[in-house]
Amino acid sequence: MSAFSFRTSHDQGAARLGWFSTPHGVVETPAFMPVATHGTIKGLSVDEVEAVGGGMMLSNAYHLSLRPGDAMVRALGGLHAFTRWKGPMLTDSGGFQVFSLAKLRAVSEDGVEFRSHLDGSVQQYTPERVIRIERNLGADVIMQFDELVAGGASVAVAQAAMERSLRWLARCRVEFERLEREGRAPITELHAPPGAPPLATHPDDLAPPPQSLFPIVQGGIHPALRRASARGILSSGDWDGIAIGGLSVGEAKPDMHAMLEVCDPELPRDRPRYLMGVGFPDDLVEGVRRGIDLFDCVAPTRMGRHGTAFTPEGTVQIRRGPYRTDRRPLVEGCPCPGCTRYDRAYLRHLFVSEEMLGPRLLALHNVAFLLTLMRDAREALRAGTFASWSEDWLARFRERGSAEGGTAADGRAEDDGA
Amino acid sequence: MSAFSFRTSHDQGAARLGWFSTPHGVVETPAFMPVATHGTIKGLSVDEVEAVGGGMMLSNAYHLSLRPGDAMVRALGGLHAFTRWKGPMLTDSGGFQVFSLAKLRAVSEDGVEFRSHLDGSVQQYTPERVIRIERNLGADVIMQFDELVAGGASVAVAQAAMERSLRWLARCRVEFERLEREGRAPITELHAPPGAPPLATHPDDLAPPPQSLFPIVQGGIHPALRRASARGILSSGDWDGIAIGGLSVGEAKPDMHAMLEVCDPELPRDRPRYLMGVGFPDDLVEGVRRGIDLFDCVAPTRMGRHGTAFTPEGTVQIRRGPYRTDRRPLVEGCPCPGCTRYDRAYLRHLFVSEEMLGPRLLALHNVAFLLTLMRDAREALRAGTFASWSEDWLARFRERGSAEGGTAADGRAEDDGA
Repeated sequence: MSAFSFRTSHDQGAARLGWFSTPHGVVETPAFMPVATHGTIKGLSVDEVEAVGGGMMLSNAYHLSLRPGDAMVRALGGLHAFTRWKGPMLTDSGGFQVFSLAKLRAVSEDGVEFRSHLDGSVQQYTPERVIRIERNLGADVIMQFDELVAGGASVAVAQAAMERSLRWLARCRVEFERLEREGRAPITELHAPPGAPPLATHPDDLAPPPQSLFPIVQGGIHPALRRASARGILSSGDWDGIAIGGLSVGEAKPDMHAMLEVCDPELPRDRPRYLMGVGFPDDLVEGVRRGIDLFDCVAPTRMGRHGTAFTPEGTVQIRRGPYRTDRRPLVEGCPCPGCTRYDRAYLRHLFVSEEMLGPRLLALHNVAFLLTLMRDAREALRAGTFASWSEDWLARFRERGSAEGGTAADGRAEDDGA
Repeated sequence: MSAFSFRTSHDQGAARLGWFSTPHGVVETPAFMPVATHGTIKGLSVDEVEAVGGGMMLSNAYHLSLRPGDAMVRALGGLHAFTRWKGPMLTDSGGFQVFSLAKLRAVSEDGVEFRSHLDGSVQQYTPERVIRIERNLGADVIMQFDELVAGGASVAVAQAAMERSLRWLARCRVEFERLEREGRAPITELHAPPGAPPLATHPDDLAPPPQSLFPIVQGGIHPALRRASARGILSSGDWDGIAIGGLSVGEAKPDMHAMLEVCDPELPRDRPRYLMGVGFPDDLVEGVRRGIDLFDCVAPTRMGRHGTAFTPEGTVQIRRGPYRTDRRPLVEGCPCPGCTRYDRAYLRHLFVSEEMLGPRLLALHNVAFLLTLMRDAREALRAGTFASWSEDWLARFRERGSAEGGTAADGRAEDDGA
């Protein structure tokens, strides 16, 4: 009945190989999803991300609802037609952005009232409104609207938000199913200019595309809350996949790992598990070891734009002096154009000269690096060598002690849109 | 004897089809050369410029001599190895940048003393020093060092600079030939980091690559000075090609056209003619009609970065409101990815959201537009229909009266490096 399915094989400990089927194709897992906050992976074209192995992409419902507007995206044919991304897509609900970027007005059981970070306009986001937005955008996987708390929140505060997120999940599902049944509201306020093709606002457009709603396990770094959240989610319905949120927001890495280990036995092994906003290369490997199948993070593009590149020996700052005369590729064997076409000396020159090609090439390199890393992890799983492969990989990556690799302060906490 | 040659056919009035042979390939003329001020066409990779028909590329000796340094470029294998551009390359001498960007200290018969616009360091540029720089960079065609004057300079001032430029041309040629004969100075101060391949500082590197020195016709908008400049250049030697400089610096378009018409009968028809710093699409067509073979300009990339696109009906601002819901390609039939992969609504969204992909796609579009325009001009010449083709093209481009198309204030006057 569902357009979504998941099968696994080659389990090694918590890690496994998987195939997540969606209406826009199958994603081999474990997989990293590049982030297109505003419907574009920053600085990169869909063709070049596909060329380095990009499969599933993430966009952001909060940002796209404000600009160009979710009705606009739908009128232009939906997120796939708008962005030209052919593979599976996922939209984050905007919960994180509402609580971090917007000028928050009031949180109540009904929802959140806030001012847009763009124009100060007052916006009301309820679970129902967010689902209508994500139904308009039309990604394959859409995330529930959840309530987020600060990293250091007390148990009581974290528990209240976790429990509210469960109640909001139920409301998300009701609205999700209502739109499936009754169709989306017609769009009447948008029109094509003279001579241009008509907008996608004919009657067929009222039926939403096949989509899957994913719940989000919350509960901070409190094992009992994580367990309660997972159990609450699973007792409320049968989900095509389950996300783990509220991690990589500044907590210590051992705490993040402990939460993954708490969640692992709670979650069904026949559903994909998506760790939101993670992360750095070593975080991905640590996540796979703990049973995670899907990741997303703005770190590769943001760090690349600012001159930091992922390598198998840790992160490097391409602006550093020794690269001036270094004619080697950034990473030998990397399939990205920055490594196959150019050398370190030229990449450094681009950054020192503030040339746009530099941020472009390093952002693509970092995305390619994570995509290649997950491909290598899948190959190790297939070969039955994942445990030793991942240990060796982590030791090599961490040996030099890279400056950027030491904290979990990244990921979902570092929104790329404002 | 020379590694450079030029042959022409299909003359129609002053216009003609041509083939300019260089050590890095043949350029079919008339041709537009995209500008890589710092050794990169702003925002674009060499692969994507080649894919839309880029043949010959221009870089800037002033900028590259300051950063990363001409000795550095040579140590890294020369401009072709550094940038990965496989086709012919040309370096402008930096005359224009010295007189416009740098904090000028003093101009004398010997040369120019100025402060770098980057770090304030005092630099001495003489004709000899500039030729040593261009010999280090290693482009196929290198431009003489010339003295430039402001657009509204009196006849006396323009004459003095034109005559000094002739004397500097003679000194450029002496140094050019000395380096050919005696070789370049060894580079000893640069070293590769541990583990990296050695720099190109072995003995073979002392012999410069085959290069051609182009003179520049000056003389402002004074016909007698332009004639005297052309005659002085031609009486001083046999050149593989000749440039026309000091135009498109704010003078009225009829004045620019008049200067091209003054130069046309003065210049040998069996040598390529390069109009420096031009320009806009209609300037290129007007130039071809007056016998010009080569053009360069930063306008396509700079305007594209700022949201202005060339179309057959004039320039358009992609941020304009009506494009919000316009699902048509920017220019039907244009071979660039911005037109073949995306639509106007998405391009507008990228600019409104300040996404880097927007400037990238529009810069490439504008470069592709000029390359395609020159290909169409060559096809019209081949078909014997250039006169009517160019009239029709200009009428269509100008019919709507685009805001940006009305002045000559662009091109070389708009340096892209600072």
